[in-house]
Amino acid sequence: MSSMRQIDLNCDMGESFGHYKLGLDEEIIKFISSANIGCGFHGGDPWVMRKTVRMAKERGVGIGAHPGLPDLVGFGRRLMDVSPSEVKNDVLYQVGSLYAFARAEGVQLQHVKPHGALYNMVARDERLGRAVAEAVREFDRDLILVALAGSRLLKLAQKMELKVASEAFADRAYNSDGSLVSRKLPHALITDREAVLSRAIQMIMDGRIISVDGKPVEVKVDTLCLHGDSPQALQLARALREQLEKVGLSVVPMGKFL
Amino acid sequence: MSSMRQIDLNCDMGESFGHYKLGLDEEIIKFISSANIGCGFHGGDPWVMRKTVRMAKERGVGIGAHPGLPDLVGFGRRLMDVSPSEVKNDVLYQVGSLYAFARAEGVQLQHVKPHGALYNMVARDERLGRAVAEAVREFDRDLILVALAGSRLLKLAQKMELKVASEAFADRAYNSDGSLVSRKLPHALITDREAVLSRAIQMIMDGRIISVDGKPVEVKVDTLCLHGDSPQALQLARALREQLEKVGLSVVPMGKFL
Amino acid sequence: MSSMRQIDLNCDMGESFGHYKLGLDEEIIKFISSANIGCGFHGGDPWVMRKTVRMAKERGVGIGAHPGLPDLVGFGRRLMDVSPSEVKNDVLYQVGSLYAFARAEGVQLQHVKPHGALYNMVARDERLGRAVAEAVREFDRDLILVALAGSRLLKLAQKMELKVASEAFADRAYNSDGSLVSRKLPHALITDREAVLSRAIQMIMDGRIISVDGKPVEVKVDTLCLHGDSPQALQLARALREQLEKVGLSVVPMGKFL
Amino acid sequence: MSSMRQIDLNCDMGESFGHYKLGLDEEIIKFISSANIGCGFHGGDPWVMRKTVRMAKERGVGIGAHPGLPDLVGFGRRLMDVSPSEVKNDVLYQVGSLYAFARAEGVQLQHVKPHGALYNMVARDERLGRAVAEAVREFDRDLILVALAGSRLLKLAQKMELKVASEAFADRAYNSDGSLVSRKLPHALITDREAVLSRAIQMIMDGRIISVDGKPVEVKVDTLCLHGDSPQALQLARALREQLEKVGLSVVPMGKFL
Repeated sequence: MSSMRQIDLNCDMGESFGHYKLGLDEEIIKFISSANIGCGFHGGDPWVMRKTVRMAKERGVGIGAHPGLPDLVGFGRRLMDVSPSEVKNDVLYQVGSLYAFARAEGVQLQHVKPHGALYNMVARDERLGRAVAEAVREFDRDLILVALAGSRLLKLAQKMELKVASEAFADRAYNSDGSLVSRKLPHALITDREAVLSRAIQMIMDGRIISVDGKPVEVKVDTLCLHGDSPQALQLARALREQLEKVGLSVVPMGKFL
Repeated sequence: MSSMRQIDLNCDMGESFGHYKLGLDEEIIKFISSANIGCGFHGGDPWVMRKTVRMAKERGVGIGAHPGLPDLVGFGRRLMDVSPSEVKNDVLYQVGSLYAFARAEGVQLQHVKPHGALYNMVARDERLGRAVAEAVREFDRDLILVALAGSRLLKLAQKMELKVASEAFADRAYNSDGSLVSRKLPHALITDREAVLSRAIQMIMDGRIISVDGKPVEVKVDTLCLHGDSPQALQLARALREQLEKVGLSVVPMGKFL
Repeated sequence: MSSMRQIDLNCDMGESFGHYKLGLDEEIIKFISSANIGCGFHGGDPWVMRKTVRMAKERGVGIGAHPGLPDLVGFGRRLMDVSPSEVKNDVLYQVGSLYAFARAEGVQLQHVKPHGALYNMVARDERLGRAVAEAVREFDRDLILVALAGSRLLKLAQKMELKVASEAFADRAYNSDGSLVSRKLPHALITDREAVLSRAIQMIMDGRIISVDGKPVEVKVDTLCLHGDSPQALQLARALREQLEKVGLSVVPMGKFL
Repeated sequence: MSSMRQIDLNCDMGESFGHYKLGLDEEIIKFISSANIGCGFHGGDPWVMRKTVRMAKERGVGIGAHPGLPDLVGFGRRLMDVSPSEVKNDVLYQVGSLYAFARAEGVQLQHVKPHGALYNMVARDERLGRAVAEAVREFDRDLILVALAGSRLLKLAQKMELKVASEAFADRAYNSDGSLVSRKLPHALITDREAVLSRAIQMIMDGRIISVDGKPVEVKVDTLCLHGDSPQALQLARALREQLEKVGLSVVPMGKFL
């Protein structure tokens, strides 16, 4: 079980914008080991990025770029018919912008995790997935690309010899092919706290989860996605972190073990 | 006069945006040695930035970030009451974004030249000037900061032990204190081609120019600013480059001699 | 044939943005009878809108709002997964913004024509089509909604008792179901000038055109879409206008006969 | 004192943007009589505008456009060197956009109140003040322009025979010339609740207030500005409304008595 001794907990952060505040960043950062920081397209602005990088640095939390679609009013959650070339350059632009703050603060950039609609688009569309993987490779081969466990993107990035982190969601139902049940369907979200906790432990320890159809699905977990946008989310994060440490797992930035 | 053997010619480029085209970049690049590339705030987009970096690389032209105020509709030409902290982080963000494309194309970032209203604001306002100088220093001490010849910013950056390039404008009238005559005044712009050519040579060879008041003004020229937005501008650029080479000057990227 | 005596020619205009110029508006306006004016989401800004409304007023050209998706860098040409509620309110916002300039200049708003990807989306998606039709109805029942000849949107709007203009494209190939051949396919665009002219006449006079499969397709033409983005487009516009008048058609704003 | 029987209470609302929520709009609307609704430049989006207009309609609250500078990330609070022509057309654009939602909901637009930096700029700069007054006049002479009590703008608009509302701030210190003490100075904001309440009553009943220099300043109050961005602000609003009604004032939309 030595390979399961380390696990990463990631959360989206730094998505405030100007006068607009979003998320309980100062709280959730206490429980996570990696931060996905907005880069200004779907959320985040230069001042917020700086502040968030500094906060992550002080906590020893791994710093990642969280590039999104150029859709601030839609928070990057609306699918857009972007081309591979647009995706590649939009991702490079955003990764570079966050890199500037990491460099200014004297810390490494650890990972890249696409946001919202872009995350889903690149997970399943081979041409867009290749674009985002190429963007990471062109910027820095040592960056870790975070992708949905079992996704096309994950396999593609591995084939391209990129470092990848396989990501799972303890509060989402899975289809038997390993994809997430669409949020538009009932039961897509698991809201019961105990259920989320036990699913998290099960995914991490067993590497599998039961799908909505009742079938076991393999789910490799390098990093687990948490949320920091409500007091309930914070309580869950705290409980999960305690639980993980109780069963002997060490919660560390993904860069430490990938 | 060996220190005058080398001179840089710079021009703003990569300021197109999406469907909107601006400037005759493919033409002007033949005559210059350094390109100031828009970073998306006042002009430029990720796709344009990539293309422009590649074009500069192919021509051996030095690559510089050209950060502007967050004012796309005003093309970064309207003064804004931004704070030093906003300036610093806005500049870092934009420098990082261009750096990503330089890195992806395997070329060095050479310099940073603020755009439009920001250029003027940081030239004379010590707090804003310090902010932009700190941004450059925090990102990379080896980057060259381009600033108006004789400006506060230039002196400040030198005191901060940054690399600086002293910039002059052959087509602008100078006040006797070395500042540029405001564009709002008559005679601010010198439109006669021969006059511009002779002023360029004079500035470079003598290190001085006659002000609007008839007094000699010291103007150190590391780099001369050209324009690429009209056929006339192109003709002037071609003529200037020929003239400079005829008098024995070598036109090279500023990074080669600073 | 009295119903065919009048025809409208429309063109997209006022899509410049700040420092960025687009289209030969001052030229094309001489040949058209209705202007679709950008409202700031995909192109256009308040200053450009004002100027364009004034120019149309001086020429007696009908004024229409040309609302687009909120995607300036993509010029509103990228499909986005927007909801009906977002479409309705985005359209209302943009129609209102143009209305302000019409009112300030003392002219009527004549029509609404969605732009780019939005035009295609609302033509075929019933929920989005209904959203745009409701936006028009909620703002002003007397506004004319311009929609693709034979489209779902056209029928829907008629059922909702809105005024509609059936639009055709003389330079686009048609499928046998009356839809336009996708631009991604070869032969989608008809570039031969004589062919475009004869197709325009045929569509208007006969109310039908031969599809790419060789079948006759019914195409009702209230208004024909022209382009003003190149000297060739201008020549075509001039030739078409002359041709139409030669065969006895009167080119007038759609509001005069719808 | 019959002219003092009616008073308006206004508050900025509808400044949320996409996923970003701002202000306790649903609460503060219970205590005010006029709403200044963001129009998308500094805050607000089409969906939020629609929702806010509907909420104001249901409560019988007067609906006003709250146009700002084109600076979303700065929330319209940073002075910008905009021209009178830019101000006029930016204001027209935004007023029209809100008008669309008022028209869709079948309610009148009551007033226009510039936001943030624009409010201050137009209050004291005659050319910009004239621009905003002309925008209102060009759109609809019956709209009320809300301006700082005693400001140049107020006088100018009256001379132009516009309807104006003289606005006062019970929680801000006044200079002896009637201008507000800059927020950058200490004591600019009055935070003691009882003090704010008594100042409000004094301004409304006496038409004057004691300046920071201890001198009486004339302050005509047609409408008093409240805030809805914190629980404390809500308590103050509730207390103020009760107090005003207790002393016999009737709180009604400014359009009822101006």
